[in-house]
Amino acid sequence: MPSLPLCWSQPLPELDTHTTELATERQGMLTKPRGSLGQLEQLAIQLAGLQRCEQPTVDPVRITVFAGDHGVCAEGVSAFPQEVTAQMIANFASGGAAISVLARELGATLEVVNLGTVGAVPDLPGVRDEQIAPATANLAVTEAMTDAQLHAALSSGDAAAERAAQAGCRLFIGGDMGIGNTTSAAAVACALLDEGAEKLAGPGTGLDTAGVAKKCEVIGRALARHGASRDPLAVLASLGGFEIAALAGAIMGSAARGIPVLVDGFIVSVAALVGVLRQPELRHWLIFAHRSAEPGHRAVLEALDAKPLLDLGMRLGEGSGAAVALPLLRSACALHNRMASFADAGVTDRDED
Amino acid sequence: MPSLPLCWSQPLPELDTHTTELATERQGMLTKPRGSLGQLEQLAIQLAGLQRCEQPTVDPVRITVFAGDHGVCAEGVSAFPQEVTAQMIANFASGGAAISVLARELGATLEVVNLGTVGAVPDLPGVRDEQIAPATANLAVTEAMTDAQLHAALSSGDAAAERAAQAGCRLFIGGDMGIGNTTSAAAVACALLDEGAEKLAGPGTGLDTAGVAKKCEVIGRALARHGASRDPLAVLASLGGFEIAALAGAIMGSAARGIPVLVDGFIVSVAALVGVLRQPELRHWLIFAHRSAEPGHRAVLEALDAKPLLDLGMRLGEGSGAAVALPLLRSACALHNRMASFADAGVTDRDED
Repeated sequence: MPSLPLCWSQPLPELDTHTTELATERQGMLTKPRGSLGQLEQLAIQLAGLQRCEQPTVDPVRITVFAGDHGVCAEGVSAFPQEVTAQMIANFASGGAAISVLARELGATLEVVNLGTVGAVPDLPGVRDEQIAPATANLAVTEAMTDAQLHAALSSGDAAAERAAQAGCRLFIGGDMGIGNTTSAAAVACALLDEGAEKLAGPGTGLDTAGVAKKCEVIGRALARHGASRDPLAVLASLGGFEIAALAGAIMGSAARGIPVLVDGFIVSVAALVGVLRQPELRHWLIFAHRSAEPGHRAVLEALDAKPLLDLGMRLGEGSGAAVALPLLRSACALHNRMASFADAGVTDRDED
Repeated sequence: MPSLPLCWSQPLPELDTHTTELATERQGMLTKPRGSLGQLEQLAIQLAGLQRCEQPTVDPVRITVFAGDHGVCAEGVSAFPQEVTAQMIANFASGGAAISVLARELGATLEVVNLGTVGAVPDLPGVRDEQIAPATANLAVTEAMTDAQLHAALSSGDAAAERAAQAGCRLFIGGDMGIGNTTSAAAVACALLDEGAEKLAGPGTGLDTAGVAKKCEVIGRALARHGASRDPLAVLASLGGFEIAALAGAIMGSAARGIPVLVDGFIVSVAALVGVLRQPELRHWLIFAHRSAEPGHRAVLEALDAKPLLDLGMRLGEGSGAAVALPLLRSACALHNRMASFADAGVTDRDED
């Protein structure tokens, strides 16, 4: 039986406050009014501290999309049929999916990890076959995963972080694909935050009002079955999905290896929440890319005290919101690393008046 | 005496609603839930209609920074001394300014147009010497510009748009540099929107509370002197700056030549407001990059019915906020142009259930 990845029970690397201070000083010397780059200044300083490097970078960047099917689809909770999960894995591999286009456009390495689909997936370039089962069990009526399956999924994510570290990646982006996964993610968030389904369940890929009501009813049954446990890993096994668990594993694994994580939307944020509730220091390693249109994201972001960079009404998953936000981090680093100082450029600073 | 650029009194190109419809249809066929790319979908559709091209692009992109000094600096309205305008032109040319770094990072062509500085500016690569006067007159006590100076500045902007068109540019970004220009821009906005200085004046490059109060008093005197005229060009001559007028000229000139404009922060938005009040159809050609931390920007954006892409607390000018937002437009175009359709990728659409 696979065991829990080591980093889930060991302290994360300590923050390098000295480098944070150096980076803060550097920002104050650049040829601009202090603070005039807004959040971009804080981003560069945060990255500098995490990377222990006064001049941070987010390249090379790794995007890993984790895919898995959900037994809860038997309840009719999605606007799309379950076969789409496997079809989309093929679409990732052939370059036609949103995240494939963005990864190419942005010069990011994309890998796809298949954790289990009901539809058959042939051998495809760029797709790792790490199937745990064809799908999770139906979380409305039983535990979604066994402990062995949970550990396998967490380990798949951890291994993705290890591959990113071996490749020298300076930033990790995780993405999700799994028809039914907004139901699972909402259920996990409800259990962790002690909220009702009505607050956290939304249209997902496009449910109408009746569809959302049904989804709430299904999540309500799941929460009643699950009971009162708030233990993050127990909640994940009971209500999660393979790809959500793998994302949690990859996020914790990245931080453990000193790699900051650019967090995508609702699904990935729920995975991050699992990690942060287990190890609060994980929060320092997370940069939040965007606010999803999925209504549950708001509460999850609040619980994580997160102010995302973008709010564009996106709700696609796949890591697409994080990919779209990536250039903001690149700009923040470029400005921090390459702008001239007042002294070097011969520009009069206000303090010299 | 220079005359008003022709495009200020001629209709702008009509929108291509047929291409807009084709682009909207295309979005509906891509392998994603409909609407799941949020504002990125609308951006691609808007660009397609403006560029009369079902597959739009924002490259090549031109960034032109217009610089000029302000007579109102005699009133002590800025945290930085006036010599900084000329010094920053040199910093643009040597590559150390924020917009220089961003232009390089993003592969955009940067040009700088010097419309008049109090400090001497030597011949510099990438800097066009189009000086009108060393500075505008002090708008607190007299008209900032003569009509001849206004027309010269508008024509400089129009000529920049013509150069962008000649170079085949598909997107125009204008930037500003001019110590004192938030005072001028706030005064213009107050006159155009019939608001008081207290609502639209802010700290600019970093005034404290007393500094902002003084700035409000100066703007109040200017508005009292100016009187009740709401004619956009009369307001611009009375209260504007050379670089603000040139930005208005460049924005109108870009639209007249079929080039969409990515609008930066407070200063550029005020220039855009002048143009839109003169020709309301100009509004269709504008994409708003970000919400500046400068408080007056909010009212100007509201008047333009604009929802900017970013809200990162930036307040630097130079076109920097637009440059930071540029990759969002690139992502929107790449997704629109290169994602697979449901049919091509063999992915089941929800409508086929």
